[in-house]
Amino acid sequence: MVIFMDKDSVGFVETQYFNINDSFVLESGRTLDDITVAYETYGELNSDKTNAILVCHALTGDAHAAGWHKGADKPGWWEIVIGPGKVLDSEKYFIICSNVLGGCKGTTGPSSINPKTGKEYALDFPVITIKDMVDVQKALIDSFGIDQLYAIIGGSMGGMQVLQWIISYPEMMKKAIPIATTAQSSPQQIAFNEVGRQAIFSDPDWKEGNYYDTGRTPRNGLSLARMIAHITYLSDESMYLKFGRDLQDKDEISYDFTMDFQVESYLHHQGESFVKRFDANSYLYITKAVDLFDVAVNNSIIEGFKDVKCKLEVISVDSDWLYPTEQSTEIVAALNANDVEVSFSEIKSNYGHDAFLLEKGQLGYFLSKFLSDNNVGDLMFTDIITIKEEDSVTKAAKIMLEQNITHIPVVTDDNKLIGIVTSWDLSKSIATNSNILKDIMTKTVKFCHSSDSIADISRMMSRFDISCLPVVDEDFVVEGMITIDQINDMFS
Amino acid sequence: MVIFMDKDSVGFVETQYFNINDSFVLESGRTLDDITVAYETYGELNSDKTNAILVCHALTGDAHAAGWHKGADKPGWWEIVIGPGKVLDSEKYFIICSNVLGGCKGTTGPSSINPKTGKEYALDFPVITIKDMVDVQKALIDSFGIDQLYAIIGGSMGGMQVLQWIISYPEMMKKAIPIATTAQSSPQQIAFNEVGRQAIFSDPDWKEGNYYDTGRTPRNGLSLARMIAHITYLSDESMYLKFGRDLQDKDEISYDFTMDFQVESYLHHQGESFVKRFDANSYLYITKAVDLFDVAVNNSIIEGFKDVKCKLEVISVDSDWLYPTEQSTEIVAALNANDVEVSFSEIKSNYGHDAFLLEKGQLGYFLSKFLSDNNVGDLMFTDIITIKEEDSVTKAAKIMLEQNITHIPVVTDDNKLIGIVTSWDLSKSIATNSNILKDIMTKTVKFCHSSDSIADISRMMSRFDISCLPVVDEDFVVEGMITIDQINDMFS
Repeated sequence: MVIFMDKDSVGFVETQYFNINDSFVLESGRTLDDITVAYETYGELNSDKTNAILVCHALTGDAHAAGWHKGADKPGWWEIVIGPGKVLDSEKYFIICSNVLGGCKGTTGPSSINPKTGKEYALDFPVITIKDMVDVQKALIDSFGIDQLYAIIGGSMGGMQVLQWIISYPEMMKKAIPIATTAQSSPQQIAFNEVGRQAIFSDPDWKEGNYYDTGRTPRNGLSLARMIAHITYLSDESMYLKFGRDLQDKDEISYDFTMDFQVESYLHHQGESFVKRFDANSYLYITKAVDLFDVAVNNSIIEGFKDVKCKLEVISVDSDWLYPTEQSTEIVAALNANDVEVSFSEIKSNYGHDAFLLEKGQLGYFLSKFLSDNNVGDLMFTDIITIKEEDSVTKAAKIMLEQNITHIPVVTDDNKLIGIVTSWDLSKSIATNSNILKDIMTKTVKFCHSSDSIADISRMMSRFDISCLPVVDEDFVVEGMITIDQINDMFS
Repeated sequence: MVIFMDKDSVGFVETQYFNINDSFVLESGRTLDDITVAYETYGELNSDKTNAILVCHALTGDAHAAGWHKGADKPGWWEIVIGPGKVLDSEKYFIICSNVLGGCKGTTGPSSINPKTGKEYALDFPVITIKDMVDVQKALIDSFGIDQLYAIIGGSMGGMQVLQWIISYPEMMKKAIPIATTAQSSPQQIAFNEVGRQAIFSDPDWKEGNYYDTGRTPRNGLSLARMIAHITYLSDESMYLKFGRDLQDKDEISYDFTMDFQVESYLHHQGESFVKRFDANSYLYITKAVDLFDVAVNNSIIEGFKDVKCKLEVISVDSDWLYPTEQSTEIVAALNANDVEVSFSEIKSNYGHDAFLLEKGQLGYFLSKFLSDNNVGDLMFTDIITIKEEDSVTKAAKIMLEQNITHIPVVTDDNKLIGIVTSWDLSKSIATNSNILKDIMTKTVKFCHSSDSIADISRMMSRFDISCLPVVDEDFVVEGMITIDQINDMFS
């Protein structure tokens, strides 16, 4: 087989596996033992472990987001954005994607062997939630020793995972990009999922979920569920453009119940190819997790987002009627109400919901703009040492020597910036023979705010030849420091 | 049982049956013998047989559009618009509604007995089309001796029948009102119908359609098909308003596959109650007829409508995503391109597609405005006698006497209006002793055009005390006559 692998592909990849050895407590209160997580990574984790991006997959996706498996005839599901030189640049970022809990692509799910019985879980598998999926991902991220992800990105159910991450682990990411998703599954979304589940339940081959040793699978039911769902992923317009009312393999309508139209044949093909790659019970569990997803607390989405800390870019698709733009703007409004820094972009496309897998150009533009648009808050270090003006110069000198730093902000008792002391100031102390910090510190100190753009600050630091700048809030309380070295690292 | 029957209901009604004795040729070329048509009528057919309105039902409707069946706990499906004093006023109009061919509510369909075998047709029933449904309705209308319907009205698949009627029988109606429908089923609509059919096909109780003597019916499949379809009849917003994310009979989500949400329970109820009243094979045939519907000729909807003669009011629903407003405005544009007199109204509603069964107020307003908005062309009689100016007064007098008329238009050889002779003019002839029409006819004759509104003409005729007016086209060719008596009859 000849594979046309783009030179901007990550190339051949293999799925890896991570085991959670402890018993894992689920949102329902039930536990799961011996969870395995299938994942792939692209690129290298840098030494500071600050360049990791987690990509979360949609309903029927898997860990294989980019590159090629040996012998496969197509690449990972988000090949259009992940790879060397692409938006999610594997030469710059360390990109991680894992199969969700409840899935059937390597991560523990209903088709996995229950260690207690030695047989497949089937319906003994506990109902799981998006929060459970995220908690499992968190264990994987921890295993890399990553304290904070640079970004978390995902579309559809992947977007739900993004929203759950920023709520469950608000300090764990600098940036988050939920795409074509919702803060709570709507009744219509639940309704479509429920008819999909009923299609599986109604298939006699489903056998209450215990089909694994029957030699048969609920093909018809699962195929039907997929066909229903697939309609919802496409826009009316894209179906017009793709199929119109064209007939399938015939010149005239046949006045029988064979398939007349191409759209019917296409849907059948989608259903048939899906049953080859997906487990029916997994479909039940994952759609249920989607239905249960609701970030609201006390019926308030705003309250649900109250602890969010990261910067967000929310993206929707104008022709997506399953996760319409209003559901994204609702997320934006609720984040705004919490003073979260959030921007919003709408992909113009006639592809419908599936556009987030297809619209390479617009996705690339929105993602790269947001990922590279840093402000001081994204880069500053907050683990800083300050000093009081009553302190001695000797103390300052000792701190500089021991911590290997050249700048120490001088603050009041309530941590407000009143000056800075630098290694240069120490020479003043020697020259004037004064050991009082107040006498030698620089009082006309330059500073910046966490919301200032890196580009602006960088220009200012170059102009005044400043190597290190305190970051203060609106009350002049010191929040952190930013150095020209950090900025240069980022742009290099 | 206590029934709360409104005083503006047509009251108790019974379904009646009409038989087509001849072998009936279908669009496919196949034939059906012994077709029975179930129908109901409300009101009385007037002596001229000019007050009949045909109402066409949607996918799963029936002939019982209004009033109450004995023992029933709810009235006909369009009770909100049909009845004494309502928009479709049974004291003014003779309203007819028949169950469609292929149905299961009294009209011949796949669950009927095949006269050739003595058993149910099942899949031996031929695939039928919207045109076949309309042709069968035409036979019913003919049986009443009705030459022209005052109006044809229908929503959804009923609207398709309306569009087929105006194409197949362009002279058979004065007015037509297609509601929430399309000129051709879209790929998305076909896709939803196809998954519904697949749900039935996949039910082991379907048995290739031969379930009638098994004591079982494909309940699961039909119920699932209905659940899928039902989602498409509701808007996302109406589901929010109706259900939100409210739980069903529980205080907390249950972390199992029982139904958590009210929307799930509601859909199940819809599915369950549907299987009690509908035949699965009928569902297959009728959805197939809908899929095949396409008025286009040579890929042109405009060409499909080229013979349309009647006036139309096209109505859509703003929140209808199954038959969106664009599909209605496409109909309007194609009719306009054929110079058909067409108006368009959009129901503002959050009910979605189902709004045409629910929005009593707006439906009432749009329907009554259009039904009462007559122009001269709607009312004039075209079976007229003219006379030439060379003719004798004696000839004119004889015509008046024999035909019992008082006004005769005087025309040129190419039928252009040049005067009028009235019984009053005859007295001039006697007084002046002239037998030459030219001498005594009224040359400053008043006239009107068929597009003039009845209200305007009525005012003019009153003002000038005119009892009869010739109707001419733009070249002054006489097309018809209109009398004050006709106008008074209409407004009485």
